Amino acid sequence: MLAKLLNQIDSKHPFTTVSAHCDIPCKIYDPITAQLAVLTMIRMVDLLNELPTANEMSAAQLAQFNRLLGEKELHGKKVKAEIQVIWGDYIKQPQLDAFPELHSLTHNIMLAASKSKQHIDRAATMELLTLVNRFAEIFWLSKGVEVYSANCPYPPAELVIYPKLAS
Amino acid sequence: MLAKLLNQIDSKHPFTTVSAHCDIPCKIYDPITAQLAVLTMIRMVDLLNELPTANEMSAAQLAQFNRLLGEKELHGKKVKAEIQVIWGDYIKQPQLDAFPELHSLTHNIMLAASKSKQHIDRAATMELLTLVNRFAEIFWLSKGVEVYSANCPYPPAELVIYPKLAS
Amino acid sequence: MLAKLLNQIDSKHPFTTVSAHCDIPCKIYDPITAQLAVLTMIRMVDLLNELPTANEMSAAQLAQFNRLLGEKELHGKKVKAEIQVIWGDYIKQPQLDAFPELHSLTHNIMLAASKSKQHIDRAATMELLTLVNRFAEIFWLSKGVEVYSANCPYPPAELVIYPKLAS
Amino acid sequence: MLAKLLNQIDSKHPFTTVSAHCDIPCKIYDPITAQLAVLTMIRMVDLLNELPTANEMSAAQLAQFNRLLGEKELHGKKVKAEIQVIWGDYIKQPQLDAFPELHSLTHNIMLAASKSKQHIDRAATMELLTLVNRFAEIFWLSKGVEVYSANCPYPPAELVIYPKLAS
Amino acid sequence: MLAKLLNQIDSKHPFTTVSAHCDIPCKIYDPITAQLAVLTMIRMVDLLNELPTANEMSAAQLAQFNRLLGEKELHGKKVKAEIQVIWGDYIKQPQLDAFPELHSLTHNIMLAASKSKQHIDRAATMELLTLVNRFAEIFWLSKGVEVYSANCPYPPAELVIYPKLAS
Amino acid sequence: MLAKLLNQIDSKHPFTTVSAHCDIPCKIYDPITAQLAVLTMIRMVDLLNELPTANEMSAAQLAQFNRLLGEKELHGKKVKAEIQVIWGDYIKQPQLDAFPELHSLTHNIMLAASKSKQHIDRAATMELLTLVNRFAEIFWLSKGVEVYSANCPYPPAELVIYPKLAS
Repeated sequence: MLAKLLNQIDSKHPFTTVSAHCDIPCKIYDPITAQLAVLTMIRMVDLLNELPTANEMSAAQLAQFNRLLGEKELHGKKVKAEIQVIWGDYIKQPQLDAFPELHSLTHNIMLAASKSKQHIDRAATMELLTLVNRFAEIFWLSKGVEVYSANCPYPPAELVIYPKLAS
Repeated sequence: MLAKLLNQIDSKHPFTTVSAHCDIPCKIYDPITAQLAVLTMIRMVDLLNELPTANEMSAAQLAQFNRLLGEKELHGKKVKAEIQVIWGDYIKQPQLDAFPELHSLTHNIMLAASKSKQHIDRAATMELLTLVNRFAEIFWLSKGVEVYSANCPYPPAELVIYPKLAS
Repeated sequence: MLAKLLNQIDSKHPFTTVSAHCDIPCKIYDPITAQLAVLTMIRMVDLLNELPTANEMSAAQLAQFNRLLGEKELHGKKVKAEIQVIWGDYIKQPQLDAFPELHSLTHNIMLAASKSKQHIDRAATMELLTLVNRFAEIFWLSKGVEVYSANCPYPPAELVIYPKLAS
Repeated sequence: MLAKLLNQIDSKHPFTTVSAHCDIPCKIYDPITAQLAVLTMIRMVDLLNELPTANEMSAAQLAQFNRLLGEKELHGKKVKAEIQVIWGDYIKQPQLDAFPELHSLTHNIMLAASKSKQHIDRAATMELLTLVNRFAEIFWLSKGVEVYSANCPYPPAELVIYPKLAS
Repeated sequence: MLAKLLNQIDSKHPFTTVSAHCDIPCKIYDPITAQLAVLTMIRMVDLLNELPTANEMSAAQLAQFNRLLGEKELHGKKVKAEIQVIWGDYIKQPQLDAFPELHSLTHNIMLAASKSKQHIDRAATMELLTLVNRFAEIFWLSKGVEVYSANCPYPPAELVIYPKLAS
Repeated sequence: MLAKLLNQIDSKHPFTTVSAHCDIPCKIYDPITAQLAVLTMIRMVDLLNELPTANEMSAAQLAQFNRLLGEKELHGKKVKAEIQVIWGDYIKQPQLDAFPELHSLTHNIMLAASKSKQHIDRAATMELLTLVNRFAEIFWLSKGVEVYSANCPYPPAELVIYPKLAS
C-alpha cells in the first residue's frame, strides 16, 4: 500500500525539486528524534506504573516518581518541538497538496502530546506514537523514500516507522 | 467590523464555556509575547540597516552586526514557539469551526518567521507582524474580548492589536 | 495622581532624550512579560489549592501537583529575570533620580519572588503582583506613557497596570 | 566481521542481563541523535564553503555565514553531549571489557568535535563522523544488534551506521 | 584594612545568625562563578584584539571572531545572572545595613556588564572586574570570611579576590 | 606528597608549553564549578533528610521536597557537564601520559554522579566529592599549581581541594 501511495505522489509532484528547494536554507530533518521522544514517554509511563500508589511511596520512590515524571514532561515538549520544526520549516504547498491531512495531523499531535503530558496514561501515549509514526511515514514518502515498520531495539519495543535505506 | 464578527461568534459558540474548559489544565495564554518578539525583529532589521556595507565595517560594527543578528534569530524562534503553544494547546475544535483559517494562518506564520530569520528584510518582517496581529485578533475574539490597534509605545512604533479591557 | 507625577517628571527630565539613549543599544522593554509571569504564579497557587491534602493524592493528582509546582517555579524565575533586565539595562541615573525607590523596589521584587517560589501562598504572590505592578507603573511613567489598571482577561482576573495607548 | 565480533561478545557476556541492569534507571539510548548532529555539521561546512571569501560577502551573505556557523557550533555541542550521555550512563564495566577502546574512542570524539567546531574543515568533520559511526557500531553490537551502513537519505548523503531491525 | 572592616561588621551584626537564616532555603552562594565569567570576558577581548582588522579577516578568522564574541556575550549574561542571584536571594536587610553601597554596586555591575558586552574594550571589562571583585569582597566579609587577592592561575592572570580559608 | 608528585610531572613534561597550546583555542578551565555543584548536591541531600517520611509530608513539605530534588538533579547534570568539558577540551596526550587514571576517573565521576542523582544518599554523594576533588587535584598539578584542602566556607562545610595561589 505504501509503495502504491508513493507512486501516486511521484506522478503528481517532482519531489527531487521540492526537496532541493527545502534543503538549501534548512537543517537536516529526521522524524526519528520525535519518535524517540514518544518512545521515552511510553517508557516513563511503564516505569511510573511499576511504583506503588502515591501515599505508599517511600522518599526514594517519590524521588523516582518525580524524576520519571520530569523526563516524561521534557520528552513531551520535545515531541511537540521536533514535529513543529518539520511542519513549519519543511512542509510547504507541494507537501500539503499531496497530503492534505498534514495540518490536522500536526495539530492532533500537539493535542495528543499535551494529553500524554497531563496524564500517566499508556493508551493515550500509544495513540501519540501512532500519530507521530503516521507523520514520519508521510515525511519519508514526501521525499520519495520507502518506509518499513519494526520494533525499536530497546524498551518499550513498540512498532516504529523507519526509512528503507539501500545498504 | 470586529464587533460584528464577535457577535457572530458569540451566537455560534458559548465561548465562556470553551475558555473555561481550556483554562483548567493550561497556562495563561497571551499573544502579546509573540507580538513583542516580532516587533523586536523589526527593530533589529532597522538597526542592521543603519550599519555600513559588510566589507566596510570596523570590528566594533561587525560585533554589533552579530549581536543584532543573534537577537533577530532568537526572537524569530520565540515568535514560532509562542504561536505554536497557543495553537497547539488552546486552539481546539470550537475555535477551528469559528475561524477555519487558523491552521493555514499558523502555518504561514511559521514560514514567514523562517523567512524573516533568513533575511534582513523589513517588508518580510512587517508581513510577519500582519500575520501575528491577525492571530492575536482571532485569539481575543475567540475569548469574547474586543480588540483595538495602536502604535506600540516604543520603537519600531508599528501598529499592534491589543485587547480592549474595562478599566 | 499619575498624571500629576508624570508632569513633575517631564519637567525635570527630557525623557525623549533618555529613551533615545537607551533604545539604541537595547531591546524593546515591556514589563507585561513579568506581569504575565506573576499572574501565572497566582493561577498555579489557585490550582494547587484545589488539590486534596498531600497524603490523600492519587498518582494522577501527585503528577498534577508536580507540574503545577514546576510551572510556578519556572515563572518565579521569569519574573526575576524580566525585572532584572529592565532594571539593569534600561534604568539609568535619570530614572533613579525621578524614582528613588527603584533600587529597593527591584530588590523587594526579588525577595518576594523567592518567597512566592518557596511557598504555596496566595497572599505572598498577590504581594508580588502589587510590587511588579508598581514597577510597571514607574516604567511607563518614566517613558511619558500614562497607565490604567484593569482585570486581566483570563484567570486569575486580577488587577494589572497597562499602558494607555492612543488607538 | 561484525557478525564474528558479535558472536565473541555474546559468548563472553550475557548482554540481556547487562541491558536489563542499564535500562531500569535510564533513558532510551540511541546514537542516531549524535550521528544526525555530525551530519548537520558536515552540511553546514558544505554550505559555508559555497559562500564567497570573507571580505567579498554582502550583508545578506555575512548573515548567512553567521547562521550556518551558529548551527555548526550548536551541533558540535550536541555531538559531545549525546556521546557523553551514552558513555557516562550506559557504558559500564562489561562493555568496557568487551570494547577496551571505548574510553579513548570517546575522548577522541571530544577532541575531534572541538576541532570541527574550531574550523571550517570538511576532512576534520568527516573524521568526526568516522569516530561517531564507530561508537554507534560498538553501541549496537554491545546490545546484540547487528548493524549495516547506508547513505543517509538527505544531504550530505554520507555513510552512516544503522541498526539492522527485523521488520 | 579588610581585617579592621571585618571587625566593625562583626561587632554590629551577628553574622553567623544571619547566614543561618539565609542558608536554610537557599543554594550555596559563591561569587567565584561571576568572577570566572568576567575573567573569560577579558580573555575573549584579548583574543579578539589579536585578530586582523575586520575587512582583512579570512573566513577562518571571521569564524573565530564570531566564536570569541559569542563566548564574550554568553559570559556577560552569566556575570549578570550570578550577581543578581546573590543580590536577590542572599542580600537582605542586615547586609544592606552593613554595606549601604550594595544596591548601587550591583546596579553598576549590570551597567558595566552591558557595556562590556556591547564593546570590545579591555578597559571597560577590567572596570567590570574591579566592581565584581568588590562585590566578592563584601560578600565574604558579610559572612565573616577574610579575603586576599591573587592573580588567577590562568590567562588573563588578573587580580582576583579569594576567600582566606583555614587549610 | 603533592610537591613530590609535582616535581615528577615537571621533569617529564614542559607544562607551560602544554597549557600554552591549550589556552589559545579554549575557555578558562576551573574545576571549582564542578566542586560547587557536588557540594550543592550534598547540601540538598542534607535538607531532604530533614523532611518527614514521604506519606507524612504536608503540601508545603512536598513542594520543598520537589524543589530540593530538582536542585539536586540540576547540579548532578552540572557536575557531569563541567568535568566533561575539562576532560574533553583540556586533557590531551601529555596530561594522559602524566595521569593515566584520567579516563577511568572521569568515567567513574559520571557513574557516581548518576548514582547521586538517582538516590538520596549522602555516602554516595560524598564519594562523588572525593572523585571530583581528585580530578581537581590532577588538574591543578597538571598546570604546575600546588593545591591544599580546606573546608568550604558554607554548608555542607566539607573538604575541598583548592589551588595554592601566591597572594
